[in-house]
Amino acid sequence: MTAVNDHSTTTRLTDEEIFRAHEGGKLGVGITASLADPRALSIAYTPGVARVSRAIADDASLAAKYTWAHRLVAVVSDGTAVLGLGDIGASASLPVMEGKAALFKTFGGLDSIPLVLDTTDVDEIVETLVRLRPSFGAVNLEDVAAPRCFELERRLIEALDVPVMHDDQHGTAVVVLAALRGANAVLDKDIANQRVVISGAGAAGVACAKILLAAGIGEVTVVDSRGIVHTGRAGLNPVKEELAAVTNGSGLRGGIAEALRGADVFVGVSSSLVEEELIASMSGDSIVFALSNPDPEVHPDVAGRHAAIVATGRSDFPNQINNVLAFPGIFRGALDAGAKRITEGMKLAAADAIAAVAADDLAADRIVPSALDPRVGPEVAAAVALAARQDGVA
Amino acid sequence: MTAVNDHSTTTRLTDEEIFRAHEGGKLGVGITASLADPRALSIAYTPGVARVSRAIADDASLAAKYTWAHRLVAVVSDGTAVLGLGDIGASASLPVMEGKAALFKTFGGLDSIPLVLDTTDVDEIVETLVRLRPSFGAVNLEDVAAPRCFELERRLIEALDVPVMHDDQHGTAVVVLAALRGANAVLDKDIANQRVVISGAGAAGVACAKILLAAGIGEVTVVDSRGIVHTGRAGLNPVKEELAAVTNGSGLRGGIAEALRGADVFVGVSSSLVEEELIASMSGDSIVFALSNPDPEVHPDVAGRHAAIVATGRSDFPNQINNVLAFPGIFRGALDAGAKRITEGMKLAAADAIAAVAADDLAADRIVPSALDPRVGPEVAAAVALAARQDGVA
Repeated sequence: MTAVNDHSTTTRLTDEEIFRAHEGGKLGVGITASLADPRALSIAYTPGVARVSRAIADDASLAAKYTWAHRLVAVVSDGTAVLGLGDIGASASLPVMEGKAALFKTFGGLDSIPLVLDTTDVDEIVETLVRLRPSFGAVNLEDVAAPRCFELERRLIEALDVPVMHDDQHGTAVVVLAALRGANAVLDKDIANQRVVISGAGAAGVACAKILLAAGIGEVTVVDSRGIVHTGRAGLNPVKEELAAVTNGSGLRGGIAEALRGADVFVGVSSSLVEEELIASMSGDSIVFALSNPDPEVHPDVAGRHAAIVATGRSDFPNQINNVLAFPGIFRGALDAGAKRITEGMKLAAADAIAAVAADDLAADRIVPSALDPRVGPEVAAAVALAARQDGVA
Repeated sequence: MTAVNDHSTTTRLTDEEIFRAHEGGKLGVGITASLADPRALSIAYTPGVARVSRAIADDASLAAKYTWAHRLVAVVSDGTAVLGLGDIGASASLPVMEGKAALFKTFGGLDSIPLVLDTTDVDEIVETLVRLRPSFGAVNLEDVAAPRCFELERRLIEALDVPVMHDDQHGTAVVVLAALRGANAVLDKDIANQRVVISGAGAAGVACAKILLAAGIGEVTVVDSRGIVHTGRAGLNPVKEELAAVTNGSGLRGGIAEALRGADVFVGVSSSLVEEELIASMSGDSIVFALSNPDPEVHPDVAGRHAAIVATGRSDFPNQINNVLAFPGIFRGALDAGAKRITEGMKLAAADAIAAVAADDLAADRIVPSALDPRVGPEVAAAVALAARQDGVA
């Protein structure tokens, strides 16, 4: 795989090739110990395997060395917020979850299986994973609707002693931070002086706000479907209350128009369209990340008439902000270090590692590495493992 | 793989080679759809995968065609009855369950993953698998202690609409029946005229009794640690009450000695040792299956002084009665036929198919095929699929 930012318009994908590629699913289980002859069978199964089981029964810590579970990433979903399709349920979410597992293997070198659940109740999901605890080594939560996803992730982190991360929150946030660092390097700007507007207070929006604050951003204002999220606004759920308390320091009121006027950075993670004139009202040398998929909040060509740097979530435009730059390396680093959880420090380290790879070859249309750049996974993993040890969780 | 009955004494297995073979576990996840370039990524993941998820959301039956779950066998255990080690718990059972999954792949061509549970409560296990229902296509229950395993298997069959089988019960029973058919063919005997004594009223013992009755055996007497299981005996659990009602037609009383006197067939599936003189007291041309592992109830050389045909569960003696002859083909046939459950007819068909493979080359020390005989899996699968259609469950 070459490190290529392929943003040429790909030939239109046909249904025929998509469905053919999905026949029988996209995953298979392979065997890493031979069973080919009687002796091999006696080693991998009875009676040899009894020695290993007995050893683990005597010393539970040996499970980490002699089973696959310790490094196995469970991709967990209840199918309530799948891509742009919304609540389609567990079974219909499976092709996406299989794809996610395939990405863990391809970009992180990690074994991964989808575990999709026919319940959306947070207690029941936590309970289910606690009962299955010995079967896996990490949990990537995926496509679970906000605001339930915040409580679910928090409860799973408490209940399981393994790395747990909701990628729609933190994978997105990590790559957004990395992209902002890249953009700022191109424009010679300082994050501490910037005011960012985030459109969307769901999984991605909340996580982006938090990571940017942790990274020292000047100010964050979050806008949801009812306007600017601010303290005192009626009817805010607990997550948004918490958000309001740490954002919008200027006390802005109104909607996206009021928020974007003079803003330095726009991060779009809802599907609400943004008029060209609002982009035009941003500060000079503005930065626009219009990440809604498949239709960005503002078309990159339109944004490009006003902003200095434009990114989207699409592979057919420059600067694709793609979570695959983050989650494989984050989990790989966490598992390599034997970390029991994924800390803020580990996420910030991941963002810096992604930015460091891009730094080699930075340009206004190259603020992040290509999603297929093979250097990213290992660099992120190494940085995250180091951060895990520094944070004392490994 | 050649069809070889390798019962030469294998060189002693060393701990070093056993543990080395188990490092990192015995399974891995492979990818069956390419992710190697931008186009492939767009097909297997976003945006292409959204088409497939939406199609399944519109037509749930398509999950069977476009995901791996439909043919995925979950090997499920709570670790309460693992090999000869007993209740060692879920995590310690994992090497055995990984091995089982590897056997499904090697002998049945089926993808399989272990799901081990940190609960032994039947309600909780059923509930957990119901919630995970969209994630797998069949359940092989393994190493769950009797008598809980009977209720658990029954409840799972009711609650899930997929093939469910407790292999320690029915895999064993199927191979025992196949072996008896082989032995009877060698000795020119009729199952309807035989009285069998089963030592052990756990998972294997109960299932063997039931399948032999279904196959038309003359009479079955089951002996547990307290003696012959008969109607009117005090303190029988519900499973043994049920067993007593359909067995021991001669009304025998006492223990293993009383039961074995004049018996035609002995099936040992407990670990209770049986004295040589009891084997000697059986009928002429007796058949002895001493299946306790690793130490048979009676050493095959000792039994061979009296019995016409002797089998054990060990690979270093002739006539190894090994469940691997049954479970891969049973699940493969069930899944190939789209069966919603595994019926008695399908199990009987499996036993006949195994016997048919052995029939080619029958001898007193070759009453079943070798566990590694590559003909067995496909023959069993074909017979089971046919039986599924005949039984109207496919």
